[in-house]
Amino acid sequence: MTTVGILGGGQLARMMILAGAPLGLRFRVYDPAADACAGQLAPLVTGAFDDLQALRAFAASVDVITFDFENVPAASVAALTALKPVFPNAQALAVAQDRLSEKTLFQSLGIPLPAFADIPSLQVLEQKVAQFGLPCIVKTRRLGYDGKGQFRIREQADVAAAWQALGEQAGSVGLILEGFVHFDCELSVVAARNAAGDFVAWPVTRNWHVDGVLSASLAPCGMPQAVQDQAVAHARAVAEHLDYVGVFALELFHCDGQLLANEMAPRVHNSGHWTGDGAQTSQFANHLRAGLGLPLGDASVLGVACMLNWLGTMPEAEPVLAQAAGFWHDYGKQPRAGRKVGHANFRADTPAALCQALAPVGQALGRDDQVRPLLDALSAR
Amino acid sequence: MTTVGILGGGQLARMMILAGAPLGLRFRVYDPAADACAGQLAPLVTGAFDDLQALRAFAASVDVITFDFENVPAASVAALTALKPVFPNAQALAVAQDRLSEKTLFQSLGIPLPAFADIPSLQVLEQKVAQFGLPCIVKTRRLGYDGKGQFRIREQADVAAAWQALGEQAGSVGLILEGFVHFDCELSVVAARNAAGDFVAWPVTRNWHVDGVLSASLAPCGMPQAVQDQAVAHARAVAEHLDYVGVFALELFHCDGQLLANEMAPRVHNSGHWTGDGAQTSQFANHLRAGLGLPLGDASVLGVACMLNWLGTMPEAEPVLAQAAGFWHDYGKQPRAGRKVGHANFRADTPAALCQALAPVGQALGRDDQVRPLLDALSAR
Repeated sequence: MTTVGILGGGQLARMMILAGAPLGLRFRVYDPAADACAGQLAPLVTGAFDDLQALRAFAASVDVITFDFENVPAASVAALTALKPVFPNAQALAVAQDRLSEKTLFQSLGIPLPAFADIPSLQVLEQKVAQFGLPCIVKTRRLGYDGKGQFRIREQADVAAAWQALGEQAGSVGLILEGFVHFDCELSVVAARNAAGDFVAWPVTRNWHVDGVLSASLAPCGMPQAVQDQAVAHARAVAEHLDYVGVFALELFHCDGQLLANEMAPRVHNSGHWTGDGAQTSQFANHLRAGLGLPLGDASVLGVACMLNWLGTMPEAEPVLAQAAGFWHDYGKQPRAGRKVGHANFRADTPAALCQALAPVGQALGRDDQVRPLLDALSAR
Repeated sequence: MTTVGILGGGQLARMMILAGAPLGLRFRVYDPAADACAGQLAPLVTGAFDDLQALRAFAASVDVITFDFENVPAASVAALTALKPVFPNAQALAVAQDRLSEKTLFQSLGIPLPAFADIPSLQVLEQKVAQFGLPCIVKTRRLGYDGKGQFRIREQADVAAAWQALGEQAGSVGLILEGFVHFDCELSVVAARNAAGDFVAWPVTRNWHVDGVLSASLAPCGMPQAVQDQAVAHARAVAEHLDYVGVFALELFHCDGQLLANEMAPRVHNSGHWTGDGAQTSQFANHLRAGLGLPLGDASVLGVACMLNWLGTMPEAEPVLAQAAGFWHDYGKQPRAGRKVGHANFRADTPAALCQALAPVGQALGRDDQVRPLLDALSAR
């Protein structure tokens, strides 16, 4: 009997538990919040991510450790790694925690990416903005996600405002400047790798973000096969360099026929949630299979699949469940503005059948705007 | 937030929890055993099924009640029904708990079934054995399952032995005699009905039993469509008569072109386990959707699917997980001779692909005998 410890007890941990229980795994979850939603399905230990004593006690109670949250301090990961097998490894987490390290890695692997620069001072910021051109975007090197810790510079006057907003973090988490990318579409590769080097990638997913947060995903993405193969090759290069074990996501922009790497997430990823109902094996199952040395499962999509994210509060379930193609995922969280509280997956044999399921859902839930990009992309096939 | 209470905390409860968590449901489980395996995923209350005080306290802590175990005493069900909505209803449980009531119901609905008779005494047993002919089988009216509480009468001398073994139960749980059926194959209909009268049935499943316990299932069953339609019509007639809410199974024999009803189970059923990976909606999800008034999900099979039951101890997972078609289900139980400890599902687009996945599994696990009936049935398509 193997007990898996998960650092972070949100929806990713929750869905790992649901996928891992059939494998005979037991789970324990560690999270600062006493109401972390994964705690509804497994024993929850509350503690801070920098409380080494509590983390060591947690490690002693499990056989292997993984994450639903990548921003665990390096010292905590090191302490855990000394006690129990941890996947993904500390280096992968460290790289993915720091936008500068991450982009430097992409660059070193020959993966194209938007212009970027370390920003230690206002002076360097001014210089790099002049070099990159407008618009461009300042981001914290660490601890930013879902559009948080970012400031977009649209005109020259925004430079001072950006420094005002984020400058004090230059000396703590660090800042980078990124050139703005006029992308045709956003893609992600969700893939799994195990310690033996086996690697599987789900079909490349097309994603739509609203205000920096994922709104909808569609797989397969509909891009030419050569583009998809290139995206998967980039993801594989990153995984092999990091000796990565588990599931990760590589987010990319597609611009004028070229792929540019945006960022990686060293964990199961929102853009892979469709795999829970739309693929032969889900990202959650393969993350655990990778970490435990079990054979990786088939990552084929079963026809065509998509996901709609629910933020803030859950909509009514009935319109989704009334569709044969529809699957409901309520994370069991309290509502809160902007919070990821659930999602719906849809799976059908053909793009036309998927459209037929999505259109009435958009109407019934008053979410035509969220559904429209999917309908447009599917109709074009 | 809805909390579902489940009486019985075995693998059926466990799989209901796994299917219900994405619907945003919380669960509490009631079971006499402190190590009931569903307790790994939800709070477990230990208590006897006839402890009305403990059951009432349990009912007070949940919003709606269902079962993974149908042999809860009628008085307990009545006490619970007075406090909270219970599905399926008490009448359905009562009928399914008693082989005589069940068979009398089938008969009253015009559903063909093997000869049967109430057996209050050795004298009636002798008389009915003479009438039905040999072989035939004595069973307890209540509390028998998976071949327990049964005695097969092969020759005249067995009559006294059968009475010796089971006769003292004639005055308690009761006994019936069943005529023996030389069946071509065993089938089951797993179906869901909600309070509005909506009804969905998964494709009719073919089953193979060994020593009275399910060994393997295959869906679709491969029988002519008229036979499948007749089987589903029988199931629907039973469900409508009982005003049934939830998932149930009707087990049938197919003999010389005719369907004979064997028994019903008022709960999710072992012969529907394949739906967890092989159908658009699983029996576990639809049981909860039915009970909670949510739309019933599509019961289509995704290609062709089958299940292998694991009894006693879990085999190695790797050979199953190495197949793209394979899914693993470990119930997290301690091994014990004959105990249902897990199963494997397989799903593929074609019968040939399913055979290709099954054959190496049978070899690797030394279970050719268990796999062979599936291969034979699939090869004949």
